[in-house]
Amino acid sequence: MNILPESARVRRPAHRREHLDNGLTILIIEDQRLPAISLTLLLPAGGATDPPGQAGTASLVAGLLNKGSRRRDADSLAVAIDDMGASYSARTGRDSLVVSLAGLSEDFMDLIALLGEITLEPAFPADEFHLLRQRRLHALTRAMDQAATVADWTFSHGLYGEHPYGPPLSGTAASMTNLAETAPEAWHRRLFVPAGSCLAIAGAVPAEQALKAAADIFDSWQGTSPPPVSHPDPVPAARRILLVDRPDSPQAQIRWGHLGISRRDPRHDAAELVNDVLGGGGFSSRLMQTIRSEKGLTYGIHSGFSARLHAGPFQISTFTPTASVGEVLRDIDDLVGAFREGGPTAMELDDARRRLVGGYPLQFETATQVAGQLLEMELYGLPEDTLESYQDRILAVDLGQAADLAHDLLHPESALAVVVGDLSAMGSAPADWGTTETVDMGLLFSARTGSC
Amino acid sequence: MNILPESARVRRPAHRREHLDNGLTILIIEDQRLPAISLTLLLPAGGATDPPGQAGTASLVAGLLNKGSRRRDADSLAVAIDDMGASYSARTGRDSLVVSLAGLSEDFMDLIALLGEITLEPAFPADEFHLLRQRRLHALTRAMDQAATVADWTFSHGLYGEHPYGPPLSGTAASMTNLAETAPEAWHRRLFVPAGSCLAIAGAVPAEQALKAAADIFDSWQGTSPPPVSHPDPVPAARRILLVDRPDSPQAQIRWGHLGISRRDPRHDAAELVNDVLGGGGFSSRLMQTIRSEKGLTYGIHSGFSARLHAGPFQISTFTPTASVGEVLRDIDDLVGAFREGGPTAMELDDARRRLVGGYPLQFETATQVAGQLLEMELYGLPEDTLESYQDRILAVDLGQAADLAHDLLHPESALAVVVGDLSAMGSAPADWGTTETVDMGLLFSARTGSC
Repeated sequence: MNILPESARVRRPAHRREHLDNGLTILIIEDQRLPAISLTLLLPAGGATDPPGQAGTASLVAGLLNKGSRRRDADSLAVAIDDMGASYSARTGRDSLVVSLAGLSEDFMDLIALLGEITLEPAFPADEFHLLRQRRLHALTRAMDQAATVADWTFSHGLYGEHPYGPPLSGTAASMTNLAETAPEAWHRRLFVPAGSCLAIAGAVPAEQALKAAADIFDSWQGTSPPPVSHPDPVPAARRILLVDRPDSPQAQIRWGHLGISRRDPRHDAAELVNDVLGGGGFSSRLMQTIRSEKGLTYGIHSGFSARLHAGPFQISTFTPTASVGEVLRDIDDLVGAFREGGPTAMELDDARRRLVGGYPLQFETATQVAGQLLEMELYGLPEDTLESYQDRILAVDLGQAADLAHDLLHPESALAVVVGDLSAMGSAPADWGTTETVDMGLLFSARTGSC
Repeated sequence: MNILPESARVRRPAHRREHLDNGLTILIIEDQRLPAISLTLLLPAGGATDPPGQAGTASLVAGLLNKGSRRRDADSLAVAIDDMGASYSARTGRDSLVVSLAGLSEDFMDLIALLGEITLEPAFPADEFHLLRQRRLHALTRAMDQAATVADWTFSHGLYGEHPYGPPLSGTAASMTNLAETAPEAWHRRLFVPAGSCLAIAGAVPAEQALKAAADIFDSWQGTSPPPVSHPDPVPAARRILLVDRPDSPQAQIRWGHLGISRRDPRHDAAELVNDVLGGGGFSSRLMQTIRSEKGLTYGIHSGFSARLHAGPFQISTFTPTASVGEVLRDIDDLVGAFREGGPTAMELDDARRRLVGGYPLQFETATQVAGQLLEMELYGLPEDTLESYQDRILAVDLGQAADLAHDLLHPESALAVVVGDLSAMGSAPADWGTTETVDMGLLFSARTGSC
């Protein structure tokens, strides 16, 4: 399958791209197959812009946008959406905040007016702030009971520390408790600006009508971004392991990794291909074949690069019976080390190319999915041919390039490992790691991170 | 919107429907928009066919189908799927077991052969049985920590008792522990038969080719269903309340309901319309407006009819601070009672019609969604025009019919209520209910149900 059959090729999705004078980009994906329309507003500011000690602010803003505007309270907004049979969502990433509203295309004018009201005129009422914050605090408490979550958070904090990629996107108990009632409104006033933002309109509305309505609603949106706060990328640290004690837990959660690459790095797609061979989720990956299938030490093991504006983490995740922690850590070291030196085999690379190229078309089934792909390009400023050249670029990665990438991007010598489990039952398993530190979850996520 | 604009109308999805000699129905939905194909095999036997004391058998069968065939072990099957970049899933309902496989259309011949191998020739290896059962037992233990799950299970057991709709679909600790290694294979041999089953092929494969391949693979499938076990519908019981103690829990989970209707009942769609006004999920429903918005006694409250072969439950679900349990129960009684006597207002009915008709087109975005809608028609033997007449039928329900339905289908006089919370803090709140019984979760789901 090194020559892509035409029948498996994803074509450039037909769309229009325009700009308003205030800097807002508008994407129109006209699609008349169903009488439906989806509106997605992407803001290029997410959890990474939370002020120090205020982790979770962007996430709270996303949760509060539809909880009251200058014209209506939370109930009236909810009823307005319900009465159209429409669906609404808002979510935060490290680099973005995304608000979506979808419904019947015949309701388009009402839907876009409502999207404008929710995003440009939120009221952030005090009672809704306290109600949502209380729910988030409950959710954070429950999350700390999950060993997998504790492992993810400890890894992220260990790798990034006080860098904004360090704390959980949803905040910590301390940062949530300390947050002032006025914080969401202040975040919105400072960062909710048109320049760099993008509105995608996908579905059965004529492009001209969609464009005109978008201009009518969003032309008055003003404001300029503050100069971006510059965060130096964290420096690779010496190899070390962080241990979190969970007495009586029969299994241990393991994380292993180091700094990865940025979504804007031209090697991004090839890095995903190379990772697919090592541990990208499939049963045939090296990590899965050795540690699950041959040795039976885990039910699943997975590796991946997280794509972000700055270098995101490269992370391997798995779990194993407490007594096997040492063996799994050694196996990971050995497997990553060997892959770094030798790269994939010809057959492994062929299989991975086929998986990535074959799974690609299913990411373009609906107009909303197409909008999502185009918005990611806008957010990270990716080259114009990113989508339609993807399959050819993946097929073009040869063995030499794949081996070079594995060598450049994998770094067992500076890996951070995290183990969450019953330390008393683990013996001296992780003793051969450079530095060992036992971490107190309560200190890490209730006080220290929160007060920084 | 009592006259449906053409632009909002869902048309009859184009498809072919054929039968093999062994009784298997084949649906072909040809769709050339993307180079993808999805295969879905529906078997008209699910959790309701679990033998007494063996709840969870069908669910375990679904989990084990891809864990080894007569030709390959679990790993080889997983690698075969991975290498095509395909996705696989199997799930159980009360009335059905559904296996899906999706991938590139150019892999169609390999995909359909694999689907045949997985569904017709599973090996149910003993080690995979024990591994999966152990994981399920862990999951059941964790589920019992969730007050919402405990409430759902207690309600279901209280309403259906030893009827097969009584126990959890996933089984109980007792039924899972007692299950013999041979039970999944026995279930498969007895119930996995072509008559009444249906294979849907949706995507970019020519209809003739799809049909021929389906016949090649599934023609040899033999077997006839055992005569269906007849379960009398449970008789409406006297009004009563079941209490489950969770000391120190600040909130209580509440369920309230009674027997509803069958998916085959011609009133099914109109019943969903009427329920939408009462508590069908929206913010403007009567339950939500009174108990959440006016009184602030809960964050959310929802009602619904579950559609099954036999009469499924009508169930209201909510949660509230312990001190408010009595008030919420009285409010539910009052609201359901008033709605039963008076039915919806003209404006309420208009809004609900609009919501249901407006949300309908979004259920047909992808070829896979269309296949799912057609398979539901096959499973319940619904009239041929079910899909394309839906919107018109909803618009045609008038105030008198809606009032009659509310009166016929709602029964506060025989309601079952379940409260899971801190009983010592609840006082005499539910004292005005006919019969009060305190239920021990351990007894209910570990021993009694399991040994029946």
